[in-house]
Amino acid sequence: MKAFVTGAAGFIGSTLVDRLLAAGHEVVGFDNFSTGFQEFLTGARDHRRFRLVEGDLLDLDAVKRAIGDAEMVFHLAANADVRFGPEHPRRDLEQNAIATWNVLEAMRAGAARRIAFSSTGSVYGEPDVHPTPEGAPFPVQTSLYGASKVAAEGMISAYAVAFGFQAYIFRFVSILGERYTHGHVFDFYRQLLEHPGRLDVLGNGRQRKSYLYAQDCISAILTAVERAAAPVNIFNLGTDEYCEVNSSIRWITNALGLAPELRYAGGERGWVGDSPFIFLDCARIRSLGWKPELTIEQGIIRTLEFLRANPWVLEKRR
Amino acid sequence: MKAFVTGAAGFIGSTLVDRLLAAGHEVVGFDNFSTGFQEFLTGARDHRRFRLVEGDLLDLDAVKRAIGDAEMVFHLAANADVRFGPEHPRRDLEQNAIATWNVLEAMRAGAARRIAFSSTGSVYGEPDVHPTPEGAPFPVQTSLYGASKVAAEGMISAYAVAFGFQAYIFRFVSILGERYTHGHVFDFYRQLLEHPGRLDVLGNGRQRKSYLYAQDCISAILTAVERAAAPVNIFNLGTDEYCEVNSSIRWITNALGLAPELRYAGGERGWVGDSPFIFLDCARIRSLGWKPELTIEQGIIRTLEFLRANPWVLEKRR
Repeated sequence: MKAFVTGAAGFIGSTLVDRLLAAGHEVVGFDNFSTGFQEFLTGARDHRRFRLVEGDLLDLDAVKRAIGDAEMVFHLAANADVRFGPEHPRRDLEQNAIATWNVLEAMRAGAARRIAFSSTGSVYGEPDVHPTPEGAPFPVQTSLYGASKVAAEGMISAYAVAFGFQAYIFRFVSILGERYTHGHVFDFYRQLLEHPGRLDVLGNGRQRKSYLYAQDCISAILTAVERAAAPVNIFNLGTDEYCEVNSSIRWITNALGLAPELRYAGGERGWVGDSPFIFLDCARIRSLGWKPELTIEQGIIRTLEFLRANPWVLEKRR
Repeated sequence: MKAFVTGAAGFIGSTLVDRLLAAGHEVVGFDNFSTGFQEFLTGARDHRRFRLVEGDLLDLDAVKRAIGDAEMVFHLAANADVRFGPEHPRRDLEQNAIATWNVLEAMRAGAARRIAFSSTGSVYGEPDVHPTPEGAPFPVQTSLYGASKVAAEGMISAYAVAFGFQAYIFRFVSILGERYTHGHVFDFYRQLLEHPGRLDVLGNGRQRKSYLYAQDCISAILTAVERAAAPVNIFNLGTDEYCEVNSSIRWITNALGLAPELRYAGGERGWVGDSPFIFLDCARIRSLGWKPELTIEQGIIRTLEFLRANPWVLEKRR
């Protein structure tokens, strides 16, 4: 197929690009390099079936030009910064909601009629049901990030109904693995480089979270777009387990051979709008035959190995 | 209280303005008159506690100036045109999602920390559960209108969490009564004026819908903002009944003394994205002591009487 990938230079986007190219597809990658890295496209750039377009999703004409005759859109570009939403509340609106609308309009003007979208488990707010299924009670949004993703989900499915698109909406837990550039493993590793004897922890360390290894995430996406046939297909993507932040700390510090003093900021939540318990019911995607290869612990260790082998990432994310 | 009402010259907005003034409150009304009518503010305009600001919600600075030192915002301005969403898909994004974000930003810059918002039963898409409660399964959006309202709901509750706002989200069924200026009673009445012997009906006439009389709607809003105290309060607003389009046709034609030939366009839905069965569970708002005064049939007759007494509305909506 001819694929159009937004956020192609990002962590998950560039991983998807490599997988699509390896599977024989033609790929146009789109990125504004606000958080993406040229380095992540080192392999793809030389590929004869890959083309990179540097542009901004807020520029509708640029998106229309770039999307060309692509058949399928993988819309992964986003403001993925959940924690600092309240410091710049327009960023989620623009980069997640309005940008998604532009992608949909570019599809309508062009030939693409299928879209896969990276949503988030944050759309469930603070759910009462764990593990949380796709049909959980209509949630109340607790973060600007989640609200902007639920806005994008709504537009995508409404476009599917109105214009005959086929939509794949994936609600991710936190993704980690090679090319990971932000999140708790990143923060903890950076801190321990700077002061190996101390680790500052947001919240009380008892927050329960789920993580999925990026290659498993991509496998799930590719499985779904191949096997699910409804006009609107919504899938949770995660592992069938969760872990406490404290467990993650133990795995990380053991791997580094450190025993830092832990300093907790306290409170049930790491930040305003943080969900203290994220654990998604992934029976729906598993029913298509997909299952993750790595456990959460293995994914965290793999992430740490990537960061240790690529100190430039920590330099650039300063 | 000092209230700021967006969409103040609209059907529901102007009705709310009159009720707020009658209850002794100070009101600043905001409207761009894209669909509102000066005539609806005839009573309010001369009131010493009322001030009208003509402006557009897409102009953030204008909203910030107008909101002044208001304590409570009633955000009723919207693109309420559900049916023609696919003909101008940016309108819902701008007038419902981005406009709501501007209202929230203006609140953050000013003193207002409470917001009441007119959402819609359309956010439930095509629900499996009837009557549909507020905690129905996480719905899939089927209209651009519903998607833009769910986007606005999400931003409002996320702002409530992030900035300590108190939010009241009301999911309306179709509202009717005096000052009603669009919808099926309007369309049917206009048709019957033009050709009394024939009535064109969208869909098969078997669509089941709920309606609520505007004064009952306002009473529910005022009850909720007085009695509900959570940070985010979500209420369905409707009657405990629904009717078939065919019943509504019978009430209307009987009231007009007509027996037109009915020509059905056919199909379960009136238009793409139309929900064939809207019936909301309103136990939550009823538990606060509110109940509607008029039945659906009485509301439809009252609406018809308004249109018959105000032919200028039909002229202006041409």
